[in-house]
Amino acid sequence: MTYCAGILVQDGLVMIADTRTNAGLDDISTFRKLHVFSWPGERTMALATAGNLSLTQSIVSLLHEGIPNPETGEAETLQNAPSMFRAAQLVGRAVRIVRETDGEALREAGLKYDMSLLFGGQIVGQPMRLFMVYSAGNFIECGMDAPFLQIGEHKYGKPILDRAVTFRSHLYDALKVGLISMDSTMRSNLGVGLPIDIIVLRRDAAAPELNRRIEAGEPYFHDLRERWSAALRAAHMAIPRPPYEPTGE
Amino acid sequence: MTYCAGILVQDGLVMIADTRTNAGLDDISTFRKLHVFSWPGERTMALATAGNLSLTQSIVSLLHEGIPNPETGEAETLQNAPSMFRAAQLVGRAVRIVRETDGEALREAGLKYDMSLLFGGQIVGQPMRLFMVYSAGNFIECGMDAPFLQIGEHKYGKPILDRAVTFRSHLYDALKVGLISMDSTMRSNLGVGLPIDIIVLRRDAAAPELNRRIEAGEPYFHDLRERWSAALRAAHMAIPRPPYEPTGE
Repeated sequence: MTYCAGILVQDGLVMIADTRTNAGLDDISTFRKLHVFSWPGERTMALATAGNLSLTQSIVSLLHEGIPNPETGEAETLQNAPSMFRAAQLVGRAVRIVRETDGEALREAGLKYDMSLLFGGQIVGQPMRLFMVYSAGNFIECGMDAPFLQIGEHKYGKPILDRAVTFRSHLYDALKVGLISMDSTMRSNLGVGLPIDIIVLRRDAAAPELNRRIEAGEPYFHDLRERWSAALRAAHMAIPRPPYEPTGE
Repeated sequence: MTYCAGILVQDGLVMIADTRTNAGLDDISTFRKLHVFSWPGERTMALATAGNLSLTQSIVSLLHEGIPNPETGEAETLQNAPSMFRAAQLVGRAVRIVRETDGEALREAGLKYDMSLLFGGQIVGQPMRLFMVYSAGNFIECGMDAPFLQIGEHKYGKPILDRAVTFRSHLYDALKVGLISMDSTMRSNLGVGLPIDIIVLRRDAAAPELNRRIEAGEPYFHDLRERWSAALRAAHMAIPRPPYEPTGE
């Protein structure tokens, strides 16, 4: 299992991914799912992956190698894509190429071609954008009304994002709420686990402002988890009990 | 969609169910999913249903009519079941009978035999018990370590139950937390909606203590939703922002 979230606010982009993979409950490993493509001063992009690891790793490798343009034959890469939209299309093409390569054999083995991606970033001088790419290679773009996208085990961590993040949120509040969302998910699904990779891209900055791994025992995240638990406990205890009078039948 | 939760604490049992059904997003209705079977002074049971409405309604009808014992031929009902365990087995048999009747035709129509049930209650002088019945008619019983069971759209409302309910919780705190759980679910899934049916059975009482419908605008539930929102907002705002120093690459 996996949980990744991308949050796009006024001042920039936050992307968060866990690192737990499992082939059955008896085979659990740690793999990086947040991949950063950065050319300082020029462009920074990040890709978070969920789903079958063999597929998503192949997609990342393809993006590093570049994909020949079907018309010109020239290799297209994230570094030479003329816009974030064209870069997202390139990611979608990588998804389709891997589907062509592996999809049929997976189907024969009784497996689905099952993956999804978050892809965000900025080319200097152009808008910062965040996309969710589906397993068919199509994609949607994050808007200002609900300024986040999620992949993987998204339900446990969605309520806090719904309630606490707006496009006008402070960039590091967005990171904080993303970490609370990750905490809620980790508490309910053992398939999502530490360490967590995070990246913060400030809008119009020339390079990632933060590109970091949070390991088990990291003081801030530990404190955040404790504080959030205590605050939730206080919150529900402060609500009065239902005043309903007995009305049995 | 549906969300139902059953919470079994020291002093009794709470069951909560929404009432929204939909056949596509363009066909939304209100149907009762929490069914109470009460013989005051003798036994009280409640059944909450999720899944295909035609199946769950047939199961409820069968339970009202009684099911012939395959050996004796006599009608077995929830009223004459000798224990809650035997009553849960009867519910499981109803599930299997409906599967035999409708399963094949559903499969031919491309539909799954998809439903699940919460079944709880007490026969006077015996233990109070809570079960979750699967679509194969098998069931599990709620224990003291995680004193709740959920069916339907369960993920959005699970974190608060995980955090806030123990077997020693006050009966009406269990109801309150169940309502918070329902609120979280309704906020994230439009397929779960008001009104909400609730029942409270106090352990060893002779009849339901509360058997009530919460309609839109009901003051206590409205207030609970407002307070919970405000408390969550305060909770995440009280947590400091991440102190991480810029570490871009």
